Amino acid sequence: MASIAVLGYGVVGTGIANLINKNKERFKSITGEELNISSILVKDKNKHEQKQNYHLVTDSIEKIFNNPVDIVVEVMGGLHPAYEYVKKALKLKKHVVTANKDLIAEYGEELLDIASDNGVTLNFEASVGGGIPILKPLMESLAGNKIFEIQAILNGTTNFILSKMYAENMGYKDALKLAQNLGFAEANPDSDVLGYDAARKLSILSTIAYGMKVNWVDINIEGITDIDEIDFEYAKLNGYIIKLLAISKNKDEKIYGFVKPVMIKSDSYLSKIDNELNGIVIEGDAVGNVFFSGKGAGMLPTASSVFGDIADIIQNKNKKNIKFNDKEAYIEKYWDEKSDWLVRIKTNDRLNTICNLSESFKNCHMYTSSVTQRDEVAAIIRNEPEFTLDSTFEKLSKLSYVTKIKKFMIL
Amino acid sequence: MASIAVLGYGVVGTGIANLINKNKERFKSITGEELNISSILVKDKNKHEQKQNYHLVTDSIEKIFNNPVDIVVEVMGGLHPAYEYVKKALKLKKHVVTANKDLIAEYGEELLDIASDNGVTLNFEASVGGGIPILKPLMESLAGNKIFEIQAILNGTTNFILSKMYAENMGYKDALKLAQNLGFAEANPDSDVLGYDAARKLSILSTIAYGMKVNWVDINIEGITDIDEIDFEYAKLNGYIIKLLAISKNKDEKIYGFVKPVMIKSDSYLSKIDNELNGIVIEGDAVGNVFFSGKGAGMLPTASSVFGDIADIIQNKNKKNIKFNDKEAYIEKYWDEKSDWLVRIKTNDRLNTICNLSESFKNCHMYTSSVTQRDEVAAIIRNEPEFTLDSTFEKLSKLSYVTKIKKFMIL
Repeated sequence: MASIAVLGYGVVGTGIANLINKNKERFKSITGEELNISSILVKDKNKHEQKQNYHLVTDSIEKIFNNPVDIVVEVMGGLHPAYEYVKKALKLKKHVVTANKDLIAEYGEELLDIASDNGVTLNFEASVGGGIPILKPLMESLAGNKIFEIQAILNGTTNFILSKMYAENMGYKDALKLAQNLGFAEANPDSDVLGYDAARKLSILSTIAYGMKVNWVDINIEGITDIDEIDFEYAKLNGYIIKLLAISKNKDEKIYGFVKPVMIKSDSYLSKIDNELNGIVIEGDAVGNVFFSGKGAGMLPTASSVFGDIADIIQNKNKKNIKFNDKEAYIEKYWDEKSDWLVRIKTNDRLNTICNLSESFKNCHMYTSSVTQRDEVAAIIRNEPEFTLDSTFEKLSKLSYVTKIKKFMIL
Repeated sequence: MASIAVLGYGVVGTGIANLINKNKERFKSITGEELNISSILVKDKNKHEQKQNYHLVTDSIEKIFNNPVDIVVEVMGGLHPAYEYVKKALKLKKHVVTANKDLIAEYGEELLDIASDNGVTLNFEASVGGGIPILKPLMESLAGNKIFEIQAILNGTTNFILSKMYAENMGYKDALKLAQNLGFAEANPDSDVLGYDAARKLSILSTIAYGMKVNWVDINIEGITDIDEIDFEYAKLNGYIIKLLAISKNKDEKIYGFVKPVMIKSDSYLSKIDNELNGIVIEGDAVGNVFFSGKGAGMLPTASSVFGDIADIIQNKNKKNIKFNDKEAYIEKYWDEKSDWLVRIKTNDRLNTICNLSESFKNCHMYTSSVTQRDEVAAIIRNEPEFTLDSTFEKLSKLSYVTKIKKFMIL
């Protein structure tokens, strides 16, 4: 029998308890082992009185570790005390499964080392892409590939908001409120809407894919809080959709990564990833592009990945542990490829702004459509690297008549 | 050091040899083990004189087994002698990796039992979906799910042909010839164009997903040889695309499966799977829909999956073996859900045929467009189960003026 302690009994913890109970018979018939939840850690026992497994609930981490336990499942979220508890569990030679992307992005290297030193496994499939099998396929099935690039939609909350803004012409604030009402966004949505959540997930994927430590704080991060209805009107004029993309690439062992709103063509794979879904494209030298998508969060999809991790530990007890490479990645500040861009410049002098743009860029098509606002110039600039754009815009932004510059990469 | 014998030195065998050589250093640094190709089995040594690894080439299976070898990679294809060689390897307690879907669909259960009895592993990721990681995610990452349905495009050859017929208005024969010229179709394309290849892959996926033996011969199979340009014109009129879909589902432990050309809406995931790509949607009770896509065949994508299988064996030497359940699935002859259908009836009496159709189906919309041929009636029939259609068509086909009936499910 495999004894499981669950830390956290919120939405995901409840899903896991249900899934383990549901799969008891089937799992035993496949592996010969029975899964059993021995205890569940909560902050406040009183809140869980009505729940099915109330007799297993405790508010004492000591009790958790004093019970016989083989696998600790951490689904509390947040950095502390998750970090301390997971570290303690690993040092006590308990296997750990976590769904916590903050924890892995911040302390993954250290915790994987501790796991390895103690001969136990730390699995974290659910930390990226929710229910989508992605980390294990990347680490194991695609082991023969040198990975060049990752393009992904990794945050369901922002994808939901952008989908509503696109499909129903909602403003950002209304779409955020709807997401909050439906439980897709938290009361404090900062980590999602500012792009931090996606950046943490991208750093986990990139660290594994490139075999180098890609810290999430080194990724260029831009959230979705500044996107307005006019941006979507421009996007639609061109048949584009705006998505918060998380992209990293490895070019000659230099890494470039960003999380930002990008205009993508409406016939691309990622353009079809709507609402709370996630999607990930991995490009490897042998396999070419492989695409994965599914539900990126939620009670049962997350529990599905956690269950897979538990099954993995039970079925492969002697498995070699993965480690994050401690070699720090060399991070490029700029994407060195040429792209097309959509730019919007708020200005008190349209004519001069248009002249400036025309002089600065060889291939610059000004918008003259009805979307264009009186106090702005909008243009598509083709085939320029980001660096050229940014250095030109730095000069432009110093002109007295230019008040704001906004740019979108077009992919 | 892990010693690998490769059976077959065609396109895929060459890809594997290249990938193993390329990954030597990296693999050793990750696992501490060196991969080494000890011998390569070919039919005719003279044909391979110019190849890099000619010194490893042998035409004697005895030599292969007399060399020290840990893992046998079977990429000869076909049933015989692949079956005999793989069986012998397993009995000699060699791990086996194969890319051979015919072999696994036909002899998978027996071979997995032999592997298990001999304490070795038989891996076959590349047998379905080429480079796409699908079998391992299904077996391991999604282990906590009851799988309800699989919808997939599993044959790159037919998908290429149908993509060309759709995008370039080519006839079937021209598109097949193009596929053959580009190496996407074999000189004898029967196994692909008649749907057998897709059915074998669907049977492997379904056997794993539902934990019951789904024989490929029990799957309803229809190929693409009868599809013509007019079918595509009707499809386009409605915004549909024609794809050879492989679908199975588990409803109350009864299995239904088919491979046939289906009209699908052009905004669905699978409609974006063009040319030689494969795509697979798996529906699980916890995870919901998960979607995988990528290159379904080819030298390096196949080698990518084979390499993942090899790495898996080396890193998990004590891994428990999977088995195919020997419980035969109960196979339903008919899909019991209502669908929409496009039907084309060749007839010498259009008026009477239209009357027949109108009387038989409540919701039947006749085509009156320019596509409609003089000697045929075409119609969309909504919300009818396949059984009703087939029994009506059986009667219709006996009428003297009806010469041919063709139907497409619309999904």
